[in-house]
Amino acid sequence: MHDRSPLAPEKFPKLPDIEGVRLATARAGYKNWDRADMLLGEFAEGTVVAGLTTTSKCPSPEVEWCRSALARGKARALVVNAGNSNAFTGRRGKAACDMILETVSGELGIAREEIFLASTGVIGVPLPEDKAKDGLRQAFNKLSVGSDASWLHAASTIMTTDTFAKGAGATAIIGDRTVAVVGIAKGSGMIAPDMATMLAFVFTDAAVSPAYLKTMLAAATDLSFHAITVDSDTSTSDTLLAFATGAAKNAEITGPDSPGADALQAALTQVCRDLAQQVVRDGEGAQKLIAVKVEGATDYASAKRIALSIANSPLVKTAVAGEDANWGRVVMAVGKAGEHADRDKLSVRFGDTIVAKDGMVVDGYDEAPVAAHLKGQEIEIGVNLGLGEGRATVWTCDLTHGYISINADYRS
Amino acid sequence: MHDRSPLAPEKFPKLPDIEGVRLATARAGYKNWDRADMLLGEFAEGTVVAGLTTTSKCPSPEVEWCRSALARGKARALVVNAGNSNAFTGRRGKAACDMILETVSGELGIAREEIFLASTGVIGVPLPEDKAKDGLRQAFNKLSVGSDASWLHAASTIMTTDTFAKGAGATAIIGDRTVAVVGIAKGSGMIAPDMATMLAFVFTDAAVSPAYLKTMLAAATDLSFHAITVDSDTSTSDTLLAFATGAAKNAEITGPDSPGADALQAALTQVCRDLAQQVVRDGEGAQKLIAVKVEGATDYASAKRIALSIANSPLVKTAVAGEDANWGRVVMAVGKAGEHADRDKLSVRFGDTIVAKDGMVVDGYDEAPVAAHLKGQEIEIGVNLGLGEGRATVWTCDLTHGYISINADYRS
Repeated sequence: MHDRSPLAPEKFPKLPDIEGVRLATARAGYKNWDRADMLLGEFAEGTVVAGLTTTSKCPSPEVEWCRSALARGKARALVVNAGNSNAFTGRRGKAACDMILETVSGELGIAREEIFLASTGVIGVPLPEDKAKDGLRQAFNKLSVGSDASWLHAASTIMTTDTFAKGAGATAIIGDRTVAVVGIAKGSGMIAPDMATMLAFVFTDAAVSPAYLKTMLAAATDLSFHAITVDSDTSTSDTLLAFATGAAKNAEITGPDSPGADALQAALTQVCRDLAQQVVRDGEGAQKLIAVKVEGATDYASAKRIALSIANSPLVKTAVAGEDANWGRVVMAVGKAGEHADRDKLSVRFGDTIVAKDGMVVDGYDEAPVAAHLKGQEIEIGVNLGLGEGRATVWTCDLTHGYISINADYRS
Repeated sequence: MHDRSPLAPEKFPKLPDIEGVRLATARAGYKNWDRADMLLGEFAEGTVVAGLTTTSKCPSPEVEWCRSALARGKARALVVNAGNSNAFTGRRGKAACDMILETVSGELGIAREEIFLASTGVIGVPLPEDKAKDGLRQAFNKLSVGSDASWLHAASTIMTTDTFAKGAGATAIIGDRTVAVVGIAKGSGMIAPDMATMLAFVFTDAAVSPAYLKTMLAAATDLSFHAITVDSDTSTSDTLLAFATGAAKNAEITGPDSPGADALQAALTQVCRDLAQQVVRDGEGAQKLIAVKVEGATDYASAKRIALSIANSPLVKTAVAGEDANWGRVVMAVGKAGEHADRDKLSVRFGDTIVAKDGMVVDGYDEAPVAAHLKGQEIEIGVNLGLGEGRATVWTCDLTHGYISINADYRS
């Protein structure tokens, strides 16, 4: 497919096993490719789950199923299909989901409501039941002979147009136990060509109550998956699920005052942020990773909306692609966010160099250090509103000819 | 600069003079170019004005001035500068505006609050007062010798990166009088490279009360300038002003029940829509004009938001650039709009061909007529939500390599 992104990490990280999580991959053959494209996860009894799904009003049947199953907060299995998103496929798409639930439930002897589903790939083609069945059979066989898949293999299996496999890990000390948090993700553009898109799965051996896992995941997401944008488009399949097996046998974390809650939150946030940034690093056509840091806003929500307005602006993103310190476009994007802003208190910086301040360009502005910063692969745009204490960071990538080529030219 | 847009109208329309409006152009020399770049309009006593400006929180001092002067509803003069937007220029930008107001007020013997200002071009450089003064002197001289500028000349003078001059006209019968409505506009991208951007001025000899002119202009704008998007970016200088001289001496229109109110509204809307579509036709890199027609939404506002979500989606716009009937991306854009939508009632068409219906691709879908439609220059994407009576149309253009070249490569 496409070349490995120039912003990709050097290699896939070393990640520990998570006790209570077993993974198997299979070749369902959803596309005409020579690779595994189905991931089956089996979780020990007592595993709890929390999740977030796309806000799209036209979600896939998998997303609808996850939304309802998440209410129970318990998980025993996960099935991920790559190459076909099963989105917008009417009754037949829903029937394929039902078949998978029925098969896994029967094979593993677990309740349907403890099985989670995600599919990613072409929109509008019902997931072929025969291929799914065949894939499940392969995966069950592997589990039965103890042939577990590595994290790298699992992360590679769920890829579609991704140019590299995405994984991240962190540990946290809870009382006298060390727990691990591991995550894998796929996504490279909110929707890749015909592909519907971001999936992320996080696994930990920590013991956490389902309700508090949900709270922690929401907090981590706000600083990670909800703080990135490639092209402002929202997929019909976005799904983030976190599974906690409890195998580390720490005292269950049930709220912010439980011992180790802060440490686990930090590890979870770190893994989510690492994965989210990897998605941006694999943004379609991306040549530069852009961190947009807004401070001095009236509050956090306002800072976040201003940061997203800048990060979503095609004119800001094309300016970065052109290595152009076009602070006028940054001001434009602040202005259009609809948030409190006072033109005459605003300052804008690229890297460490303040370009505009108090409503106008700084006296004796020297473009040289800014030009040098913009030649790099990791760009920072800073905005200080000068109004309050609100601050937020959002990550995006530049908008290049590569994006147009991938999304407009791929049929030709 | 750039080649004339392939979507440009064949030629500038023939437009009638508007009694009570006199125009003069001048070469202030805001940029190093061989053309007029200042427009002065003088209006007969009794001329009323209504207007809308950008919602940006970081507007230019010209926009701030217009916002406050519009409260009086009376106009005697208009000054438009091209090549320098005077946006984000602090005190010095404001001083330049004050100088212009002072000079025009003294020369024409009119109140400052009856003078309207607009500037478009580079952000961040204060409008040079000496050049503005020199331009005003030239313009006053021309007015004093009765050397009026044509509509084509006026429309050409306010251009920046536009590839063609934009004008439109219509007439309305009010009682035993025929009144004319004429408009000019500039804009090609919400912000062109370093340029801050859309300006439109409409002139009529109809007699209208200021309050009702405002109501009519708002209604016309909703169906025109607020129904177009090139790249979702909002300029710091967008300004639309409508001047009514009353020279046609029709019975003053003061509300929807006044004789001729509907006819004048229709003419005003037609002129605004024509100008707005010309702005999209001059969209940066545009190769295709796209009309997004949404119907069956719960109400008009919902239909409009869904249409804008589709029209702003980079993935929909790149698909059209690639002549790809990618209805999955249209569904994605409907889903992300956050409005009421039922996946299983949704239908999508390209041109006259329904592609997807009742939540899935139509049986026996024949791509040939769709492919033929997508090869044309004027594309129509239709969405029926199947929920209610709400309908709205929005215009945009495709997203091409040309957009990236104009906005990312122009420094290299």
